Amino acid sequence: MTKFRLGLVGAGKIVRDQHLGAIEAIPGLVLEAVADPHASLEGVASYVSLEAMLDARPEIDAVAICTPANLRHELARLALSRGKAVLLEKPPGATLAETEDLKAYAEAQGAVLFAAWHSRFAPGIASAREWLADRTVRAVSIRWHEDVRVWHPGQAWLWQAGGMGVFDPGINALSILTEILGQPFFLKAAELDVPANSQTPIAARLDFRTAEGTEVKADFDFRHEDPPHWEMRIETTSGVLELERGGARLLIDGQSVVDEPEREYQGVYRHFHSLLERGESDMDITPLRHVADALMLGHRRAVEAFID
Amino acid sequence: MTKFRLGLVGAGKIVRDQHLGAIEAIPGLVLEAVADPHASLEGVASYVSLEAMLDARPEIDAVAICTPANLRHELARLALSRGKAVLLEKPPGATLAETEDLKAYAEAQGAVLFAAWHSRFAPGIASAREWLADRTVRAVSIRWHEDVRVWHPGQAWLWQAGGMGVFDPGINALSILTEILGQPFFLKAAELDVPANSQTPIAARLDFRTAEGTEVKADFDFRHEDPPHWEMRIETTSGVLELERGGARLLIDGQSVVDEPEREYQGVYRHFHSLLERGESDMDITPLRHVADALMLGHRRAVEAFID
Repeated sequence: MTKFRLGLVGAGKIVRDQHLGAIEAIPGLVLEAVADPHASLEGVASYVSLEAMLDARPEIDAVAICTPANLRHELARLALSRGKAVLLEKPPGATLAETEDLKAYAEAQGAVLFAAWHSRFAPGIASAREWLADRTVRAVSIRWHEDVRVWHPGQAWLWQAGGMGVFDPGINALSILTEILGQPFFLKAAELDVPANSQTPIAARLDFRTAEGTEVKADFDFRHEDPPHWEMRIETTSGVLELERGGARLLIDGQSVVDEPEREYQGVYRHFHSLLERGESDMDITPLRHVADALMLGHRRAVEAFID
Repeated sequence: MTKFRLGLVGAGKIVRDQHLGAIEAIPGLVLEAVADPHASLEGVASYVSLEAMLDARPEIDAVAICTPANLRHELARLALSRGKAVLLEKPPGATLAETEDLKAYAEAQGAVLFAAWHSRFAPGIASAREWLADRTVRAVSIRWHEDVRVWHPGQAWLWQAGGMGVFDPGINALSILTEILGQPFFLKAAELDVPANSQTPIAARLDFRTAEGTEVKADFDFRHEDPPHWEMRIETTSGVLELERGGARLLIDGQSVVDEPEREYQGVYRHFHSLLERGESDMDITPLRHVADALMLGHRRAVEAFID
């Protein structure tokens, strides 16, 4: 197995909670260094910027960019221009223009670029995709409900312009459905509940259709008491598929087929390693595009102010 | 010059005001028929649907889709599936998902697809693009101000979800800048003024940057008294370019270089004819993507209710 040397950009909560352990679990990846102006990681060579890290460590093959979304474009462009492969935490950029630009730029550079939609690596997703591949879908419904106070305490940026509100978890559901459904779907209408003191929705009801007219309904809500419901149900002409616990559990016709602990980030890094070995990119913009469509087309309704 | 037989879909105001005269002015295009469930055109064979028109007139080579934006995807897919070339009025779809799908579908079919951004065919645009091609841009500012009561009287759909508000004219400015600037630009922040009784902005201030950090500022406002100001100014290291009257007038360093009557739709159909002859598509989604980014990232401010 080829070894690749990795640099992290950003040393925040998601890096400590998820990335470090996942990188350690993949034999083909070695963490070389981390770049963050405000933080360092115990036992890892730390630099104040991506540029400083790349100057000091030219042997780095690939960087994982785990900063806030609005910084990713400039950092990814810099890393790609220095011939590095790039992994982008989700969402891959703050805007579609940035995201499409990175895709085009990486193609022009012949560099590996990976938009890491972590929910696609939940235990039941690959089997769900395979099961659906030769079936005809009749209806899809998604319920993605969680308590924002439990899952995002104090994250004020969620409520500011560009913070996406309930689409921050909702995009995970969309990243799963776009991965497993095997056909595109199109937003026809959306209702967005926006707290009086917020720029972004706390709940959203989305009404999509496939090109053949099949209904795809999604219901995202941040106001749900724990435990969360991260679920989708796909009716086909030959059986019903259900995903629960964000894809950790897969049921076919009510029978549990996959039920495993969540290890999404190991899947993310295993896939990144495979992309690095093959010199291929996986830069799917579809989930972010659906969110932009929802915010462009959605009907906003003012609801009760949100106090964290 | 090869002759192509054209069918129109939609017989509304824009078709009567612009498309009919423009098609007549292009020797290589012949209007065969029109499809509209509610209207017909004097002296033109009329059908109640696109399907009825294509069934009755298999000799039609190409269709121009001039319906409301949310109907275009299904109609364009039908026409493309029947081997027809397709022209889409602006914007090319109600959502990015639809628009990207049409682009991919036309590529797969080997069919000609044209997103007709009419403002790109204003008299000064080609010269502006050429003048900018070998210059270094220092700053861009756009002012797109008009009186919505004069230019869109009674168009209630503008204020509803998906109606785009001031982005309906503003997207014309973005379609010009994306055509002439020669480099991509990225939204960093936006302020949207949304009337208390409306879903969409009546004014917007957009703050873009190029990859090199050059400022691109746009100011769209629907509350301006007539006459409109459809203007942009591009400072370079070797001279200043100005477009006025939506691109009908071009000034370089204050000297008028182009100043002609507006004939955008003749340019649209001349270009469509050329695409048909070459069997090529021109499906640029960039302007719509910028609008979606602005509605995703923009900070909304409630302003006075709008009474038409």
